Amino acid sequence: MKAVSSLKNPAVQAARALRDARERARQGAFLLDGEHMVGEALSVCPDRVSALFVDEARLDVYAGFIALAQKAECYAVPAHVLAAISQVKTPQGVAAVCAMPPALAPEAMGQRLILLENVQDPGNVGTVLRTLDAAGFDGCILTPGCADPFGPKALRATMGSVFRVPLCFVRDAAETVHALNVRKYATIAAALDGEDFYRRAPLPGRLCVLIGNEGAGLTEQARLACTHRFRLPMRGGAESLNAAVAAAVMMYDLINRIDTKEEPTDDPQHRI
Amino acid sequence: MKAVSSLKNPAVQAARALRDARERARQGAFLLDGEHMVGEALSVCPDRVSALFVDEARLDVYAGFIALAQKAECYAVPAHVLAAISQVKTPQGVAAVCAMPPALAPEAMGQRLILLENVQDPGNVGTVLRTLDAAGFDGCILTPGCADPFGPKALRATMGSVFRVPLCFVRDAAETVHALNVRKYATIAAALDGEDFYRRAPLPGRLCVLIGNEGAGLTEQARLACTHRFRLPMRGGAESLNAAVAAAVMMYDLINRIDTKEEPTDDPQHRI
Repeated sequence: MKAVSSLKNPAVQAARALRDARERARQGAFLLDGEHMVGEALSVCPDRVSALFVDEARLDVYAGFIALAQKAECYAVPAHVLAAISQVKTPQGVAAVCAMPPALAPEAMGQRLILLENVQDPGNVGTVLRTLDAAGFDGCILTPGCADPFGPKALRATMGSVFRVPLCFVRDAAETVHALNVRKYATIAAALDGEDFYRRAPLPGRLCVLIGNEGAGLTEQARLACTHRFRLPMRGGAESLNAAVAAAVMMYDLINRIDTKEEPTDDPQHRI
Repeated sequence: MKAVSSLKNPAVQAARALRDARERARQGAFLLDGEHMVGEALSVCPDRVSALFVDEARLDVYAGFIALAQKAECYAVPAHVLAAISQVKTPQGVAAVCAMPPALAPEAMGQRLILLENVQDPGNVGTVLRTLDAAGFDGCILTPGCADPFGPKALRATMGSVFRVPLCFVRDAAETVHALNVRKYATIAAALDGEDFYRRAPLPGRLCVLIGNEGAGLTEQARLACTHRFRLPMRGGAESLNAAVAAAVMMYDLINRIDTKEEPTDDPQHRI
């Protein structure tokens, strides 16, 4: 445990810099604010927590965290330093720096994937990760146009699922769809011009659902590259669903419908 | 069309006051910002639009709106007056005052209802209304602890569904559930201690899904009053779903599963 009181301390400066997305990418790390997120990280992936900042007046409250953070450099800091590091209005007395998970190839993540293409709202990206975790999907693929899942608003919306869900960053959705098609994934575009999702023929066990931008939907290249195009029925006057809602309805139905249970799984590590 | 340039004009003052929830309740009206929302209101419920404010420099752009707003007092205003009325950072040149829809009794709304108990996030309330409209549910019941569906953030999240979805404001969730039970509705608590939603026995055609507060869930009184308690399976490490996501997954599955289609509908007005 080191006592640090200066904003010029290099560890403090590195943590403060993480409010910038490019800096997160450069450091390969992101900032966790508050008891819930820091506690989740220390319980799910303690080895990835590289720095822990605790309000010097509340060291006793967070003694358990300090004990768990075996691989982290721990700092006791005054409240104003914690406030400077924190990205929230009312810091909770603890913050941490967490390394991003290792980048995976899409097909290495598992059998049930979701691909977000240019989903811009950080709340939507975070909510998809939370739902994916709950539904039992295996991983999330993101294109460069998506909100950063390690930004503060997305992190909050994940409610900790960001530490459990495998992520993969790809250059281009259509290119990734072609690669998944070769590996016998059903690639499923959520598209308003698709067939009725609820009248679909049975699908193979390996599948990837594509969700597009909030306003524009999927790019034409990505949509046309998919093996399947499905729409959720719109019965009232609504023209579309929120992106995170569409992803949720499709994921839960795919996991729970017999069609995805027909195919024997060939991966003993599969989570379901 | 009246030209108004003073912030002291009574119509301008009344519109500005609508940023306050109590004032919305007092006037029985809410404010619409921008082309999309004003256009939706004028197409779905033109008779409820009581005032239309158009940027005096853009009267030609919104000539169609002015023609549609038969029952509204129309005002040509300078940009600074529109900015003062508007609740968004960058006003789009048009705003309107819209009367709230008539209050209905829960059972007058239809056969498939959702009840939100203390759902505090306006984005969640708005997203539920948008999804309800798309899924083909018939109406939404809200308790006093919910975010105001006519507030700016909720309105935006509804994407116009607020004009189509019947709403009902009740004093207490448990009391409403008892009344619905008497009328043979299945009252369905979304609750983490419930039975598996996907292994449920067939349900009657009349039903009401209850969604509780983001942090605390449903109150015990409401949960225990329900005829059914269901949980969505949580397969990964996630402990719960976002409230709007849970509502969406349940609504789409209830509408599309055979169990809700078994019961003949006895209401010829029913939307499905």
